Amino acid sequence: MTERVGGDAVVVVVVAPDSFKGTASAAAVASAMARGVRRALGPAADVREIPMADGGEGTLDAVVAALGGAVRTAAVHDALGRPRTGRYGLAGGTAVVETAEGTGLPHVTDVALQPLRADSRGAGELVRATLDDGADEIILGLGGSASTDGGTGLLSALGARFLDDDGAPVPPGGAGLSEVASVDLAGLHPRARTVRWRVAVDVDNPLLGPRGAARVFAPQKGAGPEEVERLERGLDHLAQVLDAEELARTPGCGAAGGLPLSLGALLGARTEPGSSLVADAVGLPAALADADLVLTGEGCLDEQSLSGKVVAAVRALTPPGCAVVVVAGRVELSPAQVRAAGLTAALPITSGPVDLSALAARTPLLVEATTADACTLLHHRL
Amino acid sequence: MTERVGGDAVVVVVVAPDSFKGTASAAAVASAMARGVRRALGPAADVREIPMADGGEGTLDAVVAALGGAVRTAAVHDALGRPRTGRYGLAGGTAVVETAEGTGLPHVTDVALQPLRADSRGAGELVRATLDDGADEIILGLGGSASTDGGTGLLSALGARFLDDDGAPVPPGGAGLSEVASVDLAGLHPRARTVRWRVAVDVDNPLLGPRGAARVFAPQKGAGPEEVERLERGLDHLAQVLDAEELARTPGCGAAGGLPLSLGALLGARTEPGSSLVADAVGLPAALADADLVLTGEGCLDEQSLSGKVVAAVRALTPPGCAVVVVAGRVELSPAQVRAAGLTAALPITSGPVDLSALAARTPLLVEATTADACTLLHHRL
Repeated sequence: MTERVGGDAVVVVVVAPDSFKGTASAAAVASAMARGVRRALGPAADVREIPMADGGEGTLDAVVAALGGAVRTAAVHDALGRPRTGRYGLAGGTAVVETAEGTGLPHVTDVALQPLRADSRGAGELVRATLDDGADEIILGLGGSASTDGGTGLLSALGARFLDDDGAPVPPGGAGLSEVASVDLAGLHPRARTVRWRVAVDVDNPLLGPRGAARVFAPQKGAGPEEVERLERGLDHLAQVLDAEELARTPGCGAAGGLPLSLGALLGARTEPGSSLVADAVGLPAALADADLVLTGEGCLDEQSLSGKVVAAVRALTPPGCAVVVVAGRVELSPAQVRAAGLTAALPITSGPVDLSALAARTPLLVEATTADACTLLHHRL
Repeated sequence: MTERVGGDAVVVVVVAPDSFKGTASAAAVASAMARGVRRALGPAADVREIPMADGGEGTLDAVVAALGGAVRTAAVHDALGRPRTGRYGLAGGTAVVETAEGTGLPHVTDVALQPLRADSRGAGELVRATLDDGADEIILGLGGSASTDGGTGLLSALGARFLDDDGAPVPPGGAGLSEVASVDLAGLHPRARTVRWRVAVDVDNPLLGPRGAARVFAPQKGAGPEEVERLERGLDHLAQVLDAEELARTPGCGAAGGLPLSLGALLGARTEPGSSLVADAVGLPAALADADLVLTGEGCLDEQSLSGKVVAAVRALTPPGCAVVVVAGRVELSPAQVRAAGLTAALPITSGPVDLSALAARTPLLVEATTADACTLLHHRL
């Protein structure tokens, strides 16, 4: 606690939640948490609202909110080449692009999925817009893409040309990957290689193999078994053409249809775990330095939360002696797991007895859990 | 906190919940709370389980559990005069009788309700059994009765005779009240007036008038408007015959169909608020004397909870400096009301998102409430 000028002790509380997917944005959750803190602690609380994200959906809003920038739009093409308007953020010299704003799967589900045709051109058009705006740093959030093109679409939008044996451009999307014989970078945007890239990934999958982009993620993008194998061969071929076999094996290279492959091999960009990257971008380490309590949360706290997600990133940045409380839509960790993860407590939000007969049978368990939460919190000294 | 012999600080935690009506007994809730305390605090906790009740259902079990007594049974008659087996408790010289075990409404709902016929004889038969067992103190919990007979049934079972102008016994139940001209106590059980009576009521209604036994409670026992007025006149008449107009006006005299009227006028028994009476009987004041934390609770914490219910009684007995946390099925008090009531925090138990779409809209409110609870608890030093 910090001494306030007037003499009262000030409790520094940082609220840094992820969104509750499908129910509330990170900003809405952070704002609700801040109201809750003030309700309980009143003017003794110095509340710092820092909505978080893991590099996927919400990254743009989180970074723009934290850095005080503006959201802009650009005319781009979706993963099937149809015009759409995409959002990106600009705050000082830092730009924020979510891949899904250009080449997101939700934008192309109005027609039959075309996993071989889908490309990442739209994401590249957003990047190009930020370069034209003068950005000297680009935070690129991967995730949610419809494409499995190894990033060839993105690079094409920046002026690269992927050519076949005859020197003709290959077809767009994953379908053309196996034909790539060379890459012509003569027309590359002059700043594509000098800008500072920060590429956020929320998965650690490599490019190829059983945990790779094609076999794990392409089926979610509509690929059947034969298409998956064709995409796998295409990505493998591209990695060889780009002389990037080692890069292909790095964790995260399988994100967003292998986008990090072209980004890394041709522009030198490297991936980072999204939650840590966003935490750094929004200034969380500084906000936490003198905190007494940090509140974080997400829709469902489970084992995944403890590796690479927002909760884990917040926990890792929390200084010793600062309490870490998770407020989540659901808590699927045991109290022992919560403790082992270094969390002070994990509290589910409450929905009341929607179905009384179902609730009745669970009442003792729920009483036990709520009581344990209360005792844990009471026992921890702020 | 108390110093343990070994040196570790011991946290003394008393768990003293009411039942969650319809879902879990007070013993089940207390046991769940104790598990929760131990889960959170481990061996540092000295947990004292004291299931509570408010004089109604659960009083027998709570007192017997606390005093280490036994539950016995007696052959009695239900409110319509049909044989049944009723339970009562005996611990040392203290007996516990729940009126509803003899003359409870649930036992007579298999046939059409007979509000004029129903009497409290069964409760009296249980009392008689305790006297025959040698009890020198009787805790009688009112509530849940099917009768509106001013206690004439109970007194009859103990040997009193309610006679009409011709010296003949009046009919049983509320129907006979208007004919009572005198009471013959020659056959009264010899110990009915020497035993120590403790009569627990959980309502403060007087015998007569718009808040009286007939007008407020008789409709719940099946009485139509004409029957209500007949019962009102009968109770009024009995109060005059017993020269008990002042007693009739005391809070609680309208409980259990006016049972305290005969008990008070003929045996000298006086009513007490049930929750305080039970708290005293189960030894709560002594258990709380050195407590650091008391957990209480009930199915729904609302404004009623703050006057006369278990939560209020527990709160009133809690020494200064001891935290009071309510764990409830639902919490329908605002944080300001919780604070004003002197409660450290009130936590609803959690049921998870049963209906995700309904939950989504409430998410920010639920996040706010859960966060406020967490901060309140963290801020309170055990």
